[in-house]
Amino acid sequence: MFDNINIVLVNTSHPGNIGSSARAMGVMGFNKLSLVQPKEFPSEIATAMAVGCDKILDNAKVYSDLSNALGESSLNIGFSARSRKESIPVLSVDKCINKIVTDNKVTYNIIFGNEKNGLSNEELLMCDYIVTLPTASFYSSLNLSAAVQIFTYELLKKSLNNSVSSFKLQKNINLAKTKDKELFYKKLIDILKETDFVTEKNSKSLTKKIHIMFNKALLEEHEISILRGILTSIERKINT
Amino acid sequence: MFDNINIVLVNTSHPGNIGSSARAMGVMGFNKLSLVQPKEFPSEIATAMAVGCDKILDNAKVYSDLSNALGESSLNIGFSARSRKESIPVLSVDKCINKIVTDNKVTYNIIFGNEKNGLSNEELLMCDYIVTLPTASFYSSLNLSAAVQIFTYELLKKSLNNSVSSFKLQKNINLAKTKDKELFYKKLIDILKETDFVTEKNSKSLTKKIHIMFNKALLEEHEISILRGILTSIERKINT
Repeated sequence: MFDNINIVLVNTSHPGNIGSSARAMGVMGFNKLSLVQPKEFPSEIATAMAVGCDKILDNAKVYSDLSNALGESSLNIGFSARSRKESIPVLSVDKCINKIVTDNKVTYNIIFGNEKNGLSNEELLMCDYIVTLPTASFYSSLNLSAAVQIFTYELLKKSLNNSVSSFKLQKNINLAKTKDKELFYKKLIDILKETDFVTEKNSKSLTKKIHIMFNKALLEEHEISILRGILTSIERKINT
Repeated sequence: MFDNINIVLVNTSHPGNIGSSARAMGVMGFNKLSLVQPKEFPSEIATAMAVGCDKILDNAKVYSDLSNALGESSLNIGFSARSRKESIPVLSVDKCINKIVTDNKVTYNIIFGNEKNGLSNEELLMCDYIVTLPTASFYSSLNLSAAVQIFTYELLKKSLNNSVSSFKLQKNINLAKTKDKELFYKKLIDILKETDFVTEKNSKSLTKKIHIMFNKALLEEHEISILRGILTSIERKINT
């Protein structure tokens, strides 16, 4: 599906993160993975974490340096937690996704750095754009595969919205007819008069509240039948 | 930051997923975590995976069943991979996030099921809405903490975008608490058994339909009081 997107993981320390990144990609329809100097690969831990996406690991390409890994694709987008001094253009996630969806004939490398240190300044210099994901904590940072997940999810979501766009499947809903609802309300109020819940004094305001409450539910035909059946059963019980 | 959002993990099998979900939450500024029947908790594996967010685990509340876990909050949003037959309203992620950002005085439970089986049909019935995340693979499914990450990221992103924008006038709505709704459903079913409307044969399907119908109404506190008053008056009448 996303054959023009190559996910590049640089200097990954934990093989489990390679596996969970493969899963994060695979679930969203991405297949191309490149690994630059992974600490441990291939790895049983990576395979275990890939759950159903181990084929991505089998086909992953391993490189000894970043510039070789980037070779085949055109545009390089690096994910970085910090905004850097280097004046590489920074994109918001949304702008990045819009760009990829719009320029979908271009081949992209999407680059994620080491778990602890992210992309080095040298590595960032190979990037055409930097994307910084929003976070809210000083005490913790995004897990590597979580960042991969957010990127691939955003791109899939945008692609689906673009291709399906205004064509929406609509569930066939048979809303209850007003006359059936009114019969229900009338019967309910009658019973509640019998149970002394509705009195002459509160009748008007309660009738109104009951209408508002049930109308909010946008009752369907089969639901109003159930409600009327309920009232019939209560009526019968009261009168025996 | 997001004190009105309670993340609820149901029947989590792997403690590592509890830890990485805590990290996924923490990074995005979420603190409230409830666990329903976790297989193993507290757990060293969970703490190790939480990386800097272990305080969320220390403060997590553990429950023996879902309805207790949902008790204090008003609106229940379940994440489910499959679209179900039950006609519980389904929201897209974007609509869900918009709703939460707009109705930010409401308290929400955001519910994630077991890694393998997701939320059971019974658990889904306690949900006012279901959200299905877009995926692209038949061979693999979203990791639990990846789903938590996507939700919390989307809500943080939207909140940051919104915080500057326009100040919205909010109607003050006190939605009914889940525990009060559950008490109402229970009493209603009890009465309908007495009236022979609910039988052993139809009990399951009717309970389901009743939940769906009333949950659609997004009942407020004063409305659930009226409904419970109605039942009390009927009960008294039947027993005289």
